[in-house]
Formats: sequence, C-alpha cells, structure tokens
Amino acid sequence: MSDTLDSRSAWLAEDELAQARERLPMVYVDAVPVRTTPTGQVAEVGLLLRAMPDGSISRAVVSGRVLYGERVRDALMRHIEKDLGPLALPEVPASPQPFTVVEYFPEPEVSGFHDPRQHAVALAFVVPVAGDCAPSQDSLDLVWVTPEQAVTREFQAEMSGGQGRLLRMALAHCSVLP
Amino acid sequence: MSDTLDSRSAWLAEDELAQARERLPMVYVDAVPVRTTPTGQVAEVGLLLRAMPDGSISRAVVSGRVLYGERVRDALMRHIEKDLGPLALPEVPASPQPFTVVEYFPEPEVSGFHDPRQHAVALAFVVPVAGDCAPSQDSLDLVWVTPEQAVTREFQAEMSGGQGRLLRMALAHCSVLP
Amino acid sequence: MSDTLDSRSAWLAEDELAQARERLPMVYVDAVPVRTTPTGQVAEVGLLLRAMPDGSISRAVVSGRVLYGERVRDALMRHIEKDLGPLALPEVPASPQPFTVVEYFPEPEVSGFHDPRQHAVALAFVVPVAGDCAPSQDSLDLVWVTPEQAVTREFQAEMSGGQGRLLRMALAHCSVLP
Amino acid sequence: MSDTLDSRSAWLAEDELAQARERLPMVYVDAVPVRTTPTGQVAEVGLLLRAMPDGSISRAVVSGRVLYGERVRDALMRHIEKDLGPLALPEVPASPQPFTVVEYFPEPEVSGFHDPRQHAVALAFVVPVAGDCAPSQDSLDLVWVTPEQAVTREFQAEMSGGQGRLLRMALAHCSVLP
Repeated sequence: MSDTLDSRSAWLAEDELAQARERLPMVYVDAVPVRTTPTGQVAEVGLLLRAMPDGSISRAVVSGRVLYGERVRDALMRHIEKDLGPLALPEVPASPQPFTVVEYFPEPEVSGFHDPRQHAVALAFVVPVAGDCAPSQDSLDLVWVTPEQAVTREFQAEMSGGQGRLLRMALAHCSVLP
Repeated sequence: MSDTLDSRSAWLAEDELAQARERLPMVYVDAVPVRTTPTGQVAEVGLLLRAMPDGSISRAVVSGRVLYGERVRDALMRHIEKDLGPLALPEVPASPQPFTVVEYFPEPEVSGFHDPRQHAVALAFVVPVAGDCAPSQDSLDLVWVTPEQAVTREFQAEMSGGQGRLLRMALAHCSVLP
Repeated sequence: MSDTLDSRSAWLAEDELAQARERLPMVYVDAVPVRTTPTGQVAEVGLLLRAMPDGSISRAVVSGRVLYGERVRDALMRHIEKDLGPLALPEVPASPQPFTVVEYFPEPEVSGFHDPRQHAVALAFVVPVAGDCAPSQDSLDLVWVTPEQAVTREFQAEMSGGQGRLLRMALAHCSVLP
Repeated sequence: MSDTLDSRSAWLAEDELAQARERLPMVYVDAVPVRTTPTGQVAEVGLLLRAMPDGSISRAVVSGRVLYGERVRDALMRHIEKDLGPLALPEVPASPQPFTVVEYFPEPEVSGFHDPRQHAVALAFVVPVAGDCAPSQDSLDLVWVTPEQAVTREFQAEMSGGQGRLLRMALAHCSVLP
C-alpha cells in the first residue's frame, strides 16, 4: 500500500463505510488489463471471474476504491496487483486522463452501470500487462480473450452490472471493437 | 438541482460531511469556462474571484462537489449555473472523458493541488459558454482573459492551490498554451 | 473556405490528386454529428445517405479532406456546412484532441476501415449541432437516429467501409453505446 | 519497416515528394519519450539534439512521416527506433487517440508550430521507454531532463519551431507541468 497513505483514515470501520456509502459517491478506479503486440495493438483482454456486489458470479474487469490520501495511480497499481498478482508488470498510464468515467448507481436504470451497494464514480483505464498474471484474493479465475470473443453474446451475457458494456467501450477506445 | 437526485442523501448534515471529509476522497467537477471563436478555438478563459478553502482570495475556475445520486454532467451544469448565472448557456461536453483528473490533498506537496479541507478527486472539463455570464452566489467577480494574459506572472500569482497550473493544463489541452 | 488557405495549392488538378493518392496518406477529418440534451448527453446521431468511394449507397458520417494550408478546425467546419447546410450551428470542439484516429486503406482487411481510392488518416470528432440541418451537395438524405437504433443489425448493415464501427466507437466515447 | 507497407509507393522520389509537399498536408507522428516511475508517473523527458528543417540546431522530440500504407503505430515504432536505437523498448500506446494534434505550417504565425518545408499534421503521443536509448542516425545527442528542467527559460530557448510548447503540452497532459 502506498506510503503516502494516511493509515488513520484508510481504515474505515465497516459500519462507518456502510453509512458513508448511503450519503456520498465513492471514488473508484476501473482497469481493463490487456495483452498487446510489440507495436502496442490490443491482442487480448483479461477478465476476472468474481462474486459481484449483486451476489452473482460474473466476468469483470479490475476495480476498486481509492482510499483517503491515496494517489489515483497508486490505487490503480494496488488493485491490479491484488487481482492479477505481484508479477503482472502493469504499465500504468503516464497520463491521468481516463478513457471514460463510469458512474455506478444503486438503481440499475440511471446510467446502465449498476452497483447495489453504492454510488461510485470510476476512472477507467486500459492497462497493458507484460508479466505473469495469476488471479489472487477475491478472484476465482482469470481468462484472456480476443476482442472478437469478448463481444460474443455468450461472453457478454456472463458480465453483469454493465461490465460487458465497459469492456466494449475499452475496445472501442483502442480501435479493436469488432 | 437534478431530479435524479435522492433528496434524502443529498442533504448531509454539516458535521457528518466534515467527518466524511476526513475519511474518504470526495468526488468533484472542475470546469474551465471559455469563450470560443465560430470555429471553436479558445479566445478567452473565464476566471472567478472567490474566497478559497485556505482563506485567501484567489482567481479560480468553477468547481464543486458531485452529490450522492447525481450524474456528473448534472453536477457540472449545476455548478456552472451557480457560479456564472442561469443565462451562461454552457455547452457541457458530449463525452464524460475529462481532459485531466485533479487530485487535491490537504497537504500542499503531495500533488501540487491543495485543498486544506479534504482529499478531492476532480474531473476537469473545458466548457464553452455562449451566453451572458454574471458571477453569482459565492463569487465576488468574473473576468475574461486571453490565454496570453492568463499565463502572465501577475495573473498566475493571483491563483492559489494549483488553480494557475490547472488553467495552463486546460490551455495546453486546447492547444492555446502560449 | 478559410482565408488562411493558399488558393494556389488548394486547387490540385484531378490527375495530380489521383497520383498523390497512390503515394501519400491523405489527411481527413471525420465528424459524427449529434443532437444533445440540455446537459450535453447524446440523444441522437445524424447519418447521411451518400454515394461511397466503393460505389455503394451507404449511411455515413461527415467526412472530408484537409486542404493544404487549412487548419483542422476550419476543415471540420467546412465539411459540416457542406454536408449539413449553413444553418447547422455546429459546436466544433475547443480541443484538437480527436476521440480516435481512423486509418482508411485501399485494402479492406488492413484496419477494417476501407477507402478504395486511397490511404487516409482521419481525425474523428463528435460534433453537437444545435441548428437546422439540411443535407446538401453530395448527400442524398439525412436521418437522426437514437443510439439504440444506430446499433441495430439493420442499420449497421447499411453502413459500409467501417462507418458502422466508427459510429459505435463514437457512441462508446460518449458513454451511450447500448 | 512494416511489412504492411507497399514498397512501390513508400519510395517516393525526392523531387516528387518536394512537389507533393507544396500541395498536400503530410501525415506525421510526434513522440515525446519519457522515463516513468514504477507507478507510471513521468520522471524525465527525452530530448534529441538535431538539425531542424529551418537549419538551426535544436532540442526536439521524436518526429517523422507516416508512409503510404503504413499503420500509425508502425510509423511511431519505426521513428522511435530510428532516433532512440533498437533497444529503447518503447511502450507504444494501446489507443490511437493522440494527446493532441500538432499543425505545422510553412508560415510561423499560423499556429505557432513551424516547419519551413511543409504543412504537416502530426498525431502526438507520450511514449514511455524502458530500455537503453542511444541517439542514432540524424540525432546528434539525447538528454534526459526533469519536467522542472524542461520548462526553464534556458531549455525552452533551445527548442525552435514550437517544440518547447509541444513539450509543455505533453507535460500538462501527464499532469507534471510545473
């Protein structure tokens, strides 16, 4: 965890966090891990299999909260390491400009991005990973799929809460949306 | 205020907000209002004169909190109207991709962007305004300056907390940084 | 036409242009015209019906060449006026950062974007239009469709050369890809 | 050189290229090479010392023409290797979205970006390089400087044709403009 982090406030008691979640939008980062060719073209996208906030098991991108006092790029690195393991060698972007901002709401219909626990505003980045990835902690599995596979009806159906749409937005940004 | 807004939670008691501010990063929007030529080139930037969180009087861009349940673009519109008046006719961008993300910290040295009250993560947008602007509510004054004036030592010295730097970043994004 | 334009070189004889097209990539602008809500959310996309370089009749976005000596934003304005009429009131973006770069090749398979006449590199922008649009000159028709309609199989089938994909990329950038 | 390249047309006779340069805008790529920290923050910028089109010796970023039939990312890789050597290990971005578009004109005053030879439209990218760099071919020298050094009056004075401004735009995009 980042040493710029104020440990006093990073640790928010569970019930306090629950209270805050009913009052304030949370700051999140979403990271779409990709494998690229030597000239940087996206060849494959990495998708986790995980228990989602809504109780379902779903394919999902890397996602997590930015803590009090934490830099966005440190949060990005922390969540990628947590989900893909310490040897993933992510190339966190040099610019803080996200490719999109995802607004998750407790009500599914507001934006199409759904998180039953909270209102979250996520900065979304495409992150090339060059190393060995191993699903860790909360993730049950990790698969790498081509852009063509990622947009199939079967695959999109396995992604809840708008994750399938986010994935297609990332592919569009990288000009590999089929 | 947006009707998608949950009024129950939008109103956070002052002391509860103060508590949350010590525990969680806040979601903000920053808007740099600009006047453009008929082909969209930035001709002038609008700067407010306002009492800043650090107690100083400073030139500043439009800035404010995203409320629980509020869409980012609704927050952007609300804060622009609050600061520039109801006749400003802002052109809120069609894309949620900000030109940068500004990380404000209570400690001035972490990122160079400083807010003594809180850790805030602001989505920053350049917003052309076509109508009549009148400083309202908390703003003491509004001036329109050319990019050349905005980067002068005199002007930059009137902008505290990193506002001068944010302004130059916006000018750079619009390719009018002198 | 822009007065920054060198008239000597803007007028390239047809056979000289044909020769150059076999030797050099051309600079293009692509503009996706949109209607937006008062807070800037994309409600509808404008699509032209036109004779395409490959001889087909296809739905297409606004597109055209940047002339020698011409600024990108002047080219954008010129082609929008040419295709949508002089009363369209386009809001040409304040920033020159395109949402994507489209690479058209004479061979359909290189990038998926196809122009049998030439290799063209197009800077692509989403451009809100607030005024009255009337298809003019080369365009046979103009229709406004919702994002949901634009991605239907029927509609996508009417768009050749990668135009359907470009449209979905624009919708993704604006966070309204269904 | 990319094997997607049509060798027939890549080789344009010198006098033909000279003629085309008086009639058509050229497609260019500009790359700002950077060294980053493990979390991706820009620590240093790489600047070449080279003979410029205007005859001066100037600090400059990597820059070069996109050939007929060549993909933008292949051109980016080719010019980086040409200027920084084959062991630079550049991380060419996954997205084709440039951070800005630079318009070079034969007249210095049109855009502030100047190339006496031609009208060029350059897609500009920030490219992290992880390997060993050695100036090669046309470059006389390569230095790595911090963002603070890069914006000093001394350094900016060594950059002609708008290169100093482009560098500050790249630093602004990466949120490290001092």
